[in-house]
Amino acid sequence: MNDAPHLKPLDSACVPRFSAIATFMRTPAVEISSALDIALVGVPFDLGTTFRAGSRQGPAQIREMSRLIRQVNPTNGLAPFRLCNVGDVGDAPVNPLDLMGSIASITAFFERIRAVLHDALEDRVGDGMVGVIHFDAHGDTLDELLGNKVNHGTPFRRAVEEGLIDPKRMIQIGLRGTRYGDDDLRYGQDTGMCIVTMDDYEAMGRAKVIEQIRKTVGDGATYITFDIDGLDPVYAIGTGVPEPGGLSMRDSQVMLRSLVGLDIIGGDVCEVSPPLDPSGHTALNAANLMFEMLCVTADAVARRKRAGRR
Amino acid sequence: MNDAPHLKPLDSACVPRFSAIATFMRTPAVEISSALDIALVGVPFDLGTTFRAGSRQGPAQIREMSRLIRQVNPTNGLAPFRLCNVGDVGDAPVNPLDLMGSIASITAFFERIRAVLHDALEDRVGDGMVGVIHFDAHGDTLDELLGNKVNHGTPFRRAVEEGLIDPKRMIQIGLRGTRYGDDDLRYGQDTGMCIVTMDDYEAMGRAKVIEQIRKTVGDGATYITFDIDGLDPVYAIGTGVPEPGGLSMRDSQVMLRSLVGLDIIGGDVCEVSPPLDPSGHTALNAANLMFEMLCVTADAVARRKRAGRR
Amino acid sequence: MNDAPHLKPLDSACVPRFSAIATFMRTPAVEISSALDIALVGVPFDLGTTFRAGSRQGPAQIREMSRLIRQVNPTNGLAPFRLCNVGDVGDAPVNPLDLMGSIASITAFFERIRAVLHDALEDRVGDGMVGVIHFDAHGDTLDELLGNKVNHGTPFRRAVEEGLIDPKRMIQIGLRGTRYGDDDLRYGQDTGMCIVTMDDYEAMGRAKVIEQIRKTVGDGATYITFDIDGLDPVYAIGTGVPEPGGLSMRDSQVMLRSLVGLDIIGGDVCEVSPPLDPSGHTALNAANLMFEMLCVTADAVARRKRAGRR
Amino acid sequence: MNDAPHLKPLDSACVPRFSAIATFMRTPAVEISSALDIALVGVPFDLGTTFRAGSRQGPAQIREMSRLIRQVNPTNGLAPFRLCNVGDVGDAPVNPLDLMGSIASITAFFERIRAVLHDALEDRVGDGMVGVIHFDAHGDTLDELLGNKVNHGTPFRRAVEEGLIDPKRMIQIGLRGTRYGDDDLRYGQDTGMCIVTMDDYEAMGRAKVIEQIRKTVGDGATYITFDIDGLDPVYAIGTGVPEPGGLSMRDSQVMLRSLVGLDIIGGDVCEVSPPLDPSGHTALNAANLMFEMLCVTADAVARRKRAGRR
Amino acid sequence: MNDAPHLKPLDSACVPRFSAIATFMRTPAVEISSALDIALVGVPFDLGTTFRAGSRQGPAQIREMSRLIRQVNPTNGLAPFRLCNVGDVGDAPVNPLDLMGSIASITAFFERIRAVLHDALEDRVGDGMVGVIHFDAHGDTLDELLGNKVNHGTPFRRAVEEGLIDPKRMIQIGLRGTRYGDDDLRYGQDTGMCIVTMDDYEAMGRAKVIEQIRKTVGDGATYITFDIDGLDPVYAIGTGVPEPGGLSMRDSQVMLRSLVGLDIIGGDVCEVSPPLDPSGHTALNAANLMFEMLCVTADAVARRKRAGRR
Amino acid sequence: MNDAPHLKPLDSACVPRFSAIATFMRTPAVEISSALDIALVGVPFDLGTTFRAGSRQGPAQIREMSRLIRQVNPTNGLAPFRLCNVGDVGDAPVNPLDLMGSIASITAFFERIRAVLHDALEDRVGDGMVGVIHFDAHGDTLDELLGNKVNHGTPFRRAVEEGLIDPKRMIQIGLRGTRYGDDDLRYGQDTGMCIVTMDDYEAMGRAKVIEQIRKTVGDGATYITFDIDGLDPVYAIGTGVPEPGGLSMRDSQVMLRSLVGLDIIGGDVCEVSPPLDPSGHTALNAANLMFEMLCVTADAVARRKRAGRR
Repeated sequence: MNDAPHLKPLDSACVPRFSAIATFMRTPAVEISSALDIALVGVPFDLGTTFRAGSRQGPAQIREMSRLIRQVNPTNGLAPFRLCNVGDVGDAPVNPLDLMGSIASITAFFERIRAVLHDALEDRVGDGMVGVIHFDAHGDTLDELLGNKVNHGTPFRRAVEEGLIDPKRMIQIGLRGTRYGDDDLRYGQDTGMCIVTMDDYEAMGRAKVIEQIRKTVGDGATYITFDIDGLDPVYAIGTGVPEPGGLSMRDSQVMLRSLVGLDIIGGDVCEVSPPLDPSGHTALNAANLMFEMLCVTADAVARRKRAGRR
Repeated sequence: MNDAPHLKPLDSACVPRFSAIATFMRTPAVEISSALDIALVGVPFDLGTTFRAGSRQGPAQIREMSRLIRQVNPTNGLAPFRLCNVGDVGDAPVNPLDLMGSIASITAFFERIRAVLHDALEDRVGDGMVGVIHFDAHGDTLDELLGNKVNHGTPFRRAVEEGLIDPKRMIQIGLRGTRYGDDDLRYGQDTGMCIVTMDDYEAMGRAKVIEQIRKTVGDGATYITFDIDGLDPVYAIGTGVPEPGGLSMRDSQVMLRSLVGLDIIGGDVCEVSPPLDPSGHTALNAANLMFEMLCVTADAVARRKRAGRR
Repeated sequence: MNDAPHLKPLDSACVPRFSAIATFMRTPAVEISSALDIALVGVPFDLGTTFRAGSRQGPAQIREMSRLIRQVNPTNGLAPFRLCNVGDVGDAPVNPLDLMGSIASITAFFERIRAVLHDALEDRVGDGMVGVIHFDAHGDTLDELLGNKVNHGTPFRRAVEEGLIDPKRMIQIGLRGTRYGDDDLRYGQDTGMCIVTMDDYEAMGRAKVIEQIRKTVGDGATYITFDIDGLDPVYAIGTGVPEPGGLSMRDSQVMLRSLVGLDIIGGDVCEVSPPLDPSGHTALNAANLMFEMLCVTADAVARRKRAGRR
Repeated sequence: MNDAPHLKPLDSACVPRFSAIATFMRTPAVEISSALDIALVGVPFDLGTTFRAGSRQGPAQIREMSRLIRQVNPTNGLAPFRLCNVGDVGDAPVNPLDLMGSIASITAFFERIRAVLHDALEDRVGDGMVGVIHFDAHGDTLDELLGNKVNHGTPFRRAVEEGLIDPKRMIQIGLRGTRYGDDDLRYGQDTGMCIVTMDDYEAMGRAKVIEQIRKTVGDGATYITFDIDGLDPVYAIGTGVPEPGGLSMRDSQVMLRSLVGLDIIGGDVCEVSPPLDPSGHTALNAANLMFEMLCVTADAVARRKRAGRR
Repeated sequence: MNDAPHLKPLDSACVPRFSAIATFMRTPAVEISSALDIALVGVPFDLGTTFRAGSRQGPAQIREMSRLIRQVNPTNGLAPFRLCNVGDVGDAPVNPLDLMGSIASITAFFERIRAVLHDALEDRVGDGMVGVIHFDAHGDTLDELLGNKVNHGTPFRRAVEEGLIDPKRMIQIGLRGTRYGDDDLRYGQDTGMCIVTMDDYEAMGRAKVIEQIRKTVGDGATYITFDIDGLDPVYAIGTGVPEPGGLSMRDSQVMLRSLVGLDIIGGDVCEVSPPLDPSGHTALNAANLMFEMLCVTADAVARRKRAGRR
Repeated sequence: MNDAPHLKPLDSACVPRFSAIATFMRTPAVEISSALDIALVGVPFDLGTTFRAGSRQGPAQIREMSRLIRQVNPTNGLAPFRLCNVGDVGDAPVNPLDLMGSIASITAFFERIRAVLHDALEDRVGDGMVGVIHFDAHGDTLDELLGNKVNHGTPFRRAVEEGLIDPKRMIQIGLRGTRYGDDDLRYGQDTGMCIVTMDDYEAMGRAKVIEQIRKTVGDGATYITFDIDGLDPVYAIGTGVPEPGGLSMRDSQVMLRSLVGLDIIGGDVCEVSPPLDPSGHTALNAANLMFEMLCVTADAVARRKRAGRR
């Protein structure tokens, strides 16, 4: 078919994994263009962190470790590179000396992707609010930390305030860890987010959590975000604020694989700090989670394309 | 209330975690005094180890990693620093060139704490014997190792012999690992300890183990001891004698959280060897386990205070 | 009895673990001879790897970490050194500059062991085909990688082709990870291997998998092979191609312990790459798995001896 | 004498180094007060870095590694704790989410120290400008980096502009490393700083460099600053921007020891990033350099005291 | 000028070092083409090693660490990217399962570069023999190792035999380390190579060694090869066969910088094994050495261009 | 000659270094017997350390890293395995729970070696006192540490007191590091030891230090001891009490090589702590120093044999 994607990652059965310049999952390094269906992007930024920095180097290490990713999903059989043109468009511009300026330049970069790739999100995202599937140890809905409103503890409160997220279509999974006070999760509760702490997760069981995800986000446009500290530190010691007692990779993979059929519009894995895990284990897990997101996103994009939305 | 604790740890929402001199859980460094309800103590000692040393440096690394601990328990809601005055009283005096002398000086240090803090243990501990909740890969009830009677393989036999522990109120959880011979656990069995090997643990399930803990220790004064090698080595590679196939942090946290209501008089986490885990992961887990113990201990102390025992 | 094994490993209750030259599980370093019942062998070879090398150093690190192994199995009570004469016969000869030559010299070394130890495998292995219990993230039944037919992705296809393995008596456990294409496992399926992917494993549960192992291999001569990447990377980051979402050590130990009674003729643990895990954690797990294999093998050898086969 | 300092660090011949809460060089943790002659201060801050962060954790690791420091200088015989009351006053307040705010709070903290300790710097520092002995791989006199004027590449230009430093009394030692352009060192040259690149250092020899230091700073008030990347990366891999071909610890120690007799008013060691060197080697070197600075500073303070300036 | 190079690396004063896909020294990733003056190439290959492998991953880690390289040489002032169009053309094709096949494909790749870039080496290299400046701990002129003639101990004997190198115009610097026998360096001596062992190096002093280099290679076409183990292991622990007592980075930098004016035609840095140095220190040094080679090569290329040879 | 040594280490040109059980320098593992000329011994003991333990694991790691040692000295041409029968006799018996008992068992082990190997030391060591060439950061002649007289800070005072060492024939090289007090080196000075601090070393230059060594020890029986912390920490971070500003490996090698012709009777390398340097770099240096000692010892033994003393 002339519609078959023309961008292909290097095949590790032919080109040894250790060779070639490292890009995400060995996809071609490309410019942002309408020939792309899905852009893989690095955001090398950690100015908003309140404890241990280092995730500014995350994209580099995830690119390196993603050499281990092959091309077909072993569980749901999805082969994203057959469904979509996927490329590594490099890193969003940032400035490690300017928190707010970086947020502006990152935003502009993503707006350009959105404008050029035209997987018409505008149509998909009616009132501008998306659903969110959020894996994390922390709710990230605080009002401020250290007297500051824009940091790694506050993004989802800000996003709700800005009308980007529909909190009633947001689910948070894996929350745990000692708390600053009694009300760390209050904002999420008050705005109607579905909160699945690790205690809840265990009580419900993974299957019910998967049902709950689908029920919460429904069939509207949905974004996935995976803070690597949602995983237990055994899977992700390379992160700034690890909290014991978290999700396993197996459970995370199964949950992400279960999202087939939802209207996924994109996703991210964040908070991977290479200096805190030079072995690359954390980044390896991040690369695998990223592949899972890619599979369900590519499937959704392909469906939208087939449905003539594009 | 004028009874509200006046000692407060640094609040990580206000003072960044990486700043300030490292004390346990960011509590104030204080002298032993009657103003304290609970003393956090380091015992930097590893002369009794028969393989890899290093736990003499454990308290330092746990203090460092305990910067990550906040103030409220996410599961049982306990906020120990609202219940009790908690301070870091530093390290018990030891001499790395004198095994028996160190045991004497450590004992004296704890006796001073007991005398000064007067959470009247004397009253609580009628005949001088306490119950023990013991998490470990090893029974630690051997008679001797390498011809020696006082080492990391023998403490609980010695404690029973000295009349400090009531073996019938002692439960051991997580035992596993290859054995020296057929009788490694014999002493515990013969004296009536409740032994929950990993095989037992799995067969019973965590909920039943929790029931068994409560049944075994009853409502008498109870001490908690967590040898970090009770955890699977994925959670605690920084220890001298790791044994695969162990407890998870999640299960350990849940078990410790379930001890609310028991008459907990204190506890310890031991065998953290920083040189064997420079990442601090093991110490991070130790700090979290220590916080769980602190929660249930503070709760018990507060109850005893309310009950007029103090 | 005069039949009691005369070769004994060092007893860690008497000789500290850190002392003495490192051999597998502290057994005597011996020559291949008929006085041995079971030979522990290193194969320091990694020329067939397509990504990260280093397992050539695996035997050295496993010997070092196997200092932690004691003498009695905590679950099935087996004490292999009471059942059999077990010794470390050193490493098979290899040449890191010659893939095919090394395979020839390794083969010759094992043939000599087989000839000299005369645990009459010839009688046991009627038509020359053995059953195989295979733990791995990868099927290792590809036809070729990088245009080559003899590498770490193809051994079991080659072995079936050479008539060494009866694929209908082979079970593969733990398969997962992204795939090169849709047919990575096809050869195994087509030849009748029993394939238990991680999805299958979870769906069946460990008990059923154990049943399936016994059903698949039956009572014929059976070999065990454990690619360390069958474990989740949290247990085995020191390996060339880690795949998240894998087996736990606990489950692996229980499965291996359940093999008592089968006609086990030997086994291996492979793909441990020390430079990728200087902590020794991966090698520690490998040493423990090796001990589990030794237990069930020693039990089988002893049974065969008692049955007059020797 | 009643003037003998009353603050004493722990003596490692009596209290084992691994014990007690970690403070700088085992000095007492104290409040800022006039009883102090010299305050040891942490500044856990790295917002101004343009590549790899992490030095916010530097003070914690230097405190830990400074357990190795004893009390007497082996070369110049200075014993700072006999000369001065020295204490660890903790960390200057910072906010990792606010670059300029942190600079303000750090400044305020040091101004308080200056006000309270009254080692009358005002008198010493006539027109407000100090001389500076600056060890570094980089000149740190750029006008801006990434469009920003306040970062780790610009401090000494800013300080000259603010009239804090007399550039003619400033010497830079150890400069090297690839350059952004032809004029990286231009500002220093233009303002009259004495620049000793590694090429110069080698050509002159250490003895002449020491002479040059004395000639440059003269007998005015002089500050020492040691960017740890002035050392060759073999001594300091734990830093954000290492440059091969640098100073040795031996040479650095000898140069610092040679400053006896100068009017040293203080100093700093900066850019130690613990996540990039978990072994603590970099921090160990930092602690030793800090001790050298302390020796010559204590000597100068004692002289000023004796001279009745205090 | 229209001759000014149009290919420019990212400027780290504008684009933070941690961002963007990692290429050698942040140069553009390009195809081999005549628009290039100098191609930066990775050769991810280590099949010829006899001890510890891992240098197959060297190019990836050197690319990552070369983010630290800026654009101007601090000593000789050379700015290679102003002199030449320099690009990263990726990795030569290799097959980790095929030693001889890989050598063929690597050779072909370099022949293509030579054909396309047409910095008319043919003219430069009259009789096909080049001079060589060789930094190494080992002579690498053995006849065979482990019965094999093509491995990391034999390349320069093979090259002389093939008429590629004029041994009388070859100098070896830094040789040391225990020897297999009395004649390890015999071939080099017999064929007239100039051998500067570490003992010679120290006896002569660096300045005389530099003179000797120029005398040996003369003004003919000259190639530079730097085996990273020529450095002392403190600078390069990430290599397979480290030998204590070696060259320093400072001396190596100065020697390479002194090559200005010679007819340098290219160079390599080899034997960097990332798994043996996850800190990246070895790769950082390799990147810096590579930059030094680039400077003198670019200078020579520019001179040849100006001389109308191109 | 029938006198030619019959014990040979594995030749790394034939047997790859990574293979075979690790013994010191790949020599045969043998029993103590009169067939041996020189015994290589491990003493896995660290009970006398006052800060960081771990050197109990030193022999194991040095054995592993000594795989890198070949057979001929590159500088003095000595080939110890042609001169003497050298074997690895394993480890002296120790008990990590018994400081004084271990010293007794170690002593007995060495007395047995002395008795059996009969390189008639009795004749050589007239009044029982030997000369000592001592490389170290510390004088190790304190009277006590932590109230204890037998520890790593006191051995040479004890040895002088016991009449084992002639202090006038003892030279200490490399002393440095902050001091406990003014008199740390007093005992050595008072008893007439020749003390070469790092300041002295630099002032004298290596050549003069070598002369001084020869002058001090004369032609009497002489023992070499190298505390690995004599090296700068860049060469030996894996040790308990590192002191910056120390000896280089190059200088150490040259000094040891210069001892040819002295009446060397043995030597040791101590304080290598593997957990503090998992890279093996420290142990690699230790193995190389050990080889240097072996060369000059073998030379001396061979001379004594030729002289008919044996």
